[in-house]
Amino acid sequence: MKNLNIARPTLLLDKQKCLNNISQMSDKAKHHRLIFRPHFKTHQSAEVGNWFRDFGIKSITVSSVKMAAFFAKHGWDDITIAFPVNLREISEINILASKIKLNLLVESETIVDFLNNKLTTPAGVFIKIDTGYHRTGIIAEDVDLIERMVRKITTSKKLTFRGFLTHSGNTYYANSLKEIDRIHHNSIRKLKSLRKAFSDKSDHFILSIGDTPSCSMMDDFEGTDEIRPGNFVFYDVMQYKLGSCAIDDIAVCMVCPVVAKNDQRNEVVIYGGAIHFSKESLLLNDTPVFGLVVELNNQGWLAAVTKKSFVKSISQEHGVIKVNTDLFNKIKVGDLVGVLPVHSCLAVSEMRRYYTLEGEEISTINFEC
Amino acid sequence: MKNLNIARPTLLLDKQKCLNNISQMSDKAKHHRLIFRPHFKTHQSAEVGNWFRDFGIKSITVSSVKMAAFFAKHGWDDITIAFPVNLREISEINILASKIKLNLLVESETIVDFLNNKLTTPAGVFIKIDTGYHRTGIIAEDVDLIERMVRKITTSKKLTFRGFLTHSGNTYYANSLKEIDRIHHNSIRKLKSLRKAFSDKSDHFILSIGDTPSCSMMDDFEGTDEIRPGNFVFYDVMQYKLGSCAIDDIAVCMVCPVVAKNDQRNEVVIYGGAIHFSKESLLLNDTPVFGLVVELNNQGWLAAVTKKSFVKSISQEHGVIKVNTDLFNKIKVGDLVGVLPVHSCLAVSEMRRYYTLEGEEISTINFEC
Repeated sequence: MKNLNIARPTLLLDKQKCLNNISQMSDKAKHHRLIFRPHFKTHQSAEVGNWFRDFGIKSITVSSVKMAAFFAKHGWDDITIAFPVNLREISEINILASKIKLNLLVESETIVDFLNNKLTTPAGVFIKIDTGYHRTGIIAEDVDLIERMVRKITTSKKLTFRGFLTHSGNTYYANSLKEIDRIHHNSIRKLKSLRKAFSDKSDHFILSIGDTPSCSMMDDFEGTDEIRPGNFVFYDVMQYKLGSCAIDDIAVCMVCPVVAKNDQRNEVVIYGGAIHFSKESLLLNDTPVFGLVVELNNQGWLAAVTKKSFVKSISQEHGVIKVNTDLFNKIKVGDLVGVLPVHSCLAVSEMRRYYTLEGEEISTINFEC
Repeated sequence: MKNLNIARPTLLLDKQKCLNNISQMSDKAKHHRLIFRPHFKTHQSAEVGNWFRDFGIKSITVSSVKMAAFFAKHGWDDITIAFPVNLREISEINILASKIKLNLLVESETIVDFLNNKLTTPAGVFIKIDTGYHRTGIIAEDVDLIERMVRKITTSKKLTFRGFLTHSGNTYYANSLKEIDRIHHNSIRKLKSLRKAFSDKSDHFILSIGDTPSCSMMDDFEGTDEIRPGNFVFYDVMQYKLGSCAIDDIAVCMVCPVVAKNDQRNEVVIYGGAIHFSKESLLLNDTPVFGLVVELNNQGWLAAVTKKSFVKSISQEHGVIKVNTDLFNKIKVGDLVGVLPVHSCLAVSEMRRYYTLEGEEISTINFEC
């Protein structure tokens, strides 16, 4: 690892782990004959995006118009913006639609009418279906509304009906593999009932699903056509807790300088806080955890971590870590420790650039002011 | 408000409210004959920093070496870095010490020895005292350690002993004014006991306290010399909940486009998520809240908010807001709504730039790549 002269919190990427994660998901998609349209909101980087090309990936998912514009600029010409259409960005949407094969998400007749009026170049649309997450989308049972929308879309000269899309984000709240299995199959069942209901209304539309827990853990995708996972590219402690990955699959690690130690509390204070990790936490053994602590070595980090060494709290720039006694005695002020982030997408977004273990700098969309 | 052609989440600053907040805290400091050394980690901006100069402010607090370098570049020459010395930034510390009056925080003999060896230009040091927050610092009762450190500092040719400094961040967890009062007076009592114990060891050292809740709500600072609040400059929902400010004192508001509505749940989906607000939440009436919803008008925002309209969840780019029925019926997809952030420091850090109601762009340290 070339960057051990690190002075400030620095996000490292183990490229080999990342490539393994991409390879596994790509193989799974091929095995199940699914279109693999990875979500790029996790790595947010043109460089990491390029690594996907070696696996034959040509179509991607993003979470904002801004991100679509960024990846379009970097050569991606088939992009789904998996976020409800924001009317206020219609000019940017029109620019994109004129350049690439663009898919938008609609979930109301208002938006379909708006696009019909305002799009200057045709675009594809997915109807966003709520299969149980209850964040966005039309509930799958509202067939009347869905039918009106399908009719409007299929009779529009501006819009091409691409199909039904869902994101089962409720898997993130699941407590067992069984529950994830239930959510996953429930989503597929609902999408398939829409396929059945609308197969005579439109040809060649697809069913698209997306969350990393389902895509990582499930092995039955029968009836769906496309998967759009994103987080799997790096994984994180949240996915590890859910069971999506092994701890060794987590491909990013924040390196943080140790700035203080407290003997009474077996606590170590690191330079590394909310402006580096964001403020996502989860419960491990009923304890709020903001990251898992790992030891660094010349090859990267040792993931043989115990859950007993973790970030217990973070403020703007500080993190407080609880470590086991062995590690506490080993750590000195001025040392570096590694922290596996709870939510890698947010850590990447906060840091704006990261480094491979070989010292290559990876910049992201947010690095461009 | 000049920016109502806003297309993406945009942070607005009501400059008048901000100036009122500065003015009130400045008056309070003058009234109590306290040095006012505001913490600049909230606004993070050279421009807002300049507004403080009109109130006679000449000395400031920051939370990192990087932030000290930024404000030094923008003309501030008396800066306390209220974060434990990070050994790995000694080169940057030396550069700063050669240019400005720099104060550092120490909390171990190791660090005092290190500075004695490595500083190339003299610097001031505060001993960081833990008066109950238990994040960093030496517990006030450990007089033996403090005495050894005072001796090392006062006999050093490189270090000037500035005094004892604490941050009662535990006020953020208080449930009543009475509890904040107790924490505040407990901190002062502990610092005063150190003054007494060490008054013969050094002349002219000071006692410095810092948290916004105490500085905003308390009216007895007898025995202390300096206050270092930061958040008061903008305040936020967290300070409002604690009682530090009125809702009308909150000077920043995130303007977010409405992208979807759900009739069944009285929920509105906004473009505005963790990458805009960070992921700080708090409980209001036992409900997790990520921001309070306000209506926008031509003069800014209407703070006659009810707690019934709030951000109930955020993911990377989405926010889901619960609104009362009146507001739900009024809001259309494509409208803009305002959200008062739970933690303004983090929202500023995420956004990297903000705009006054008059349309002036305010860039921050993070805007400089």
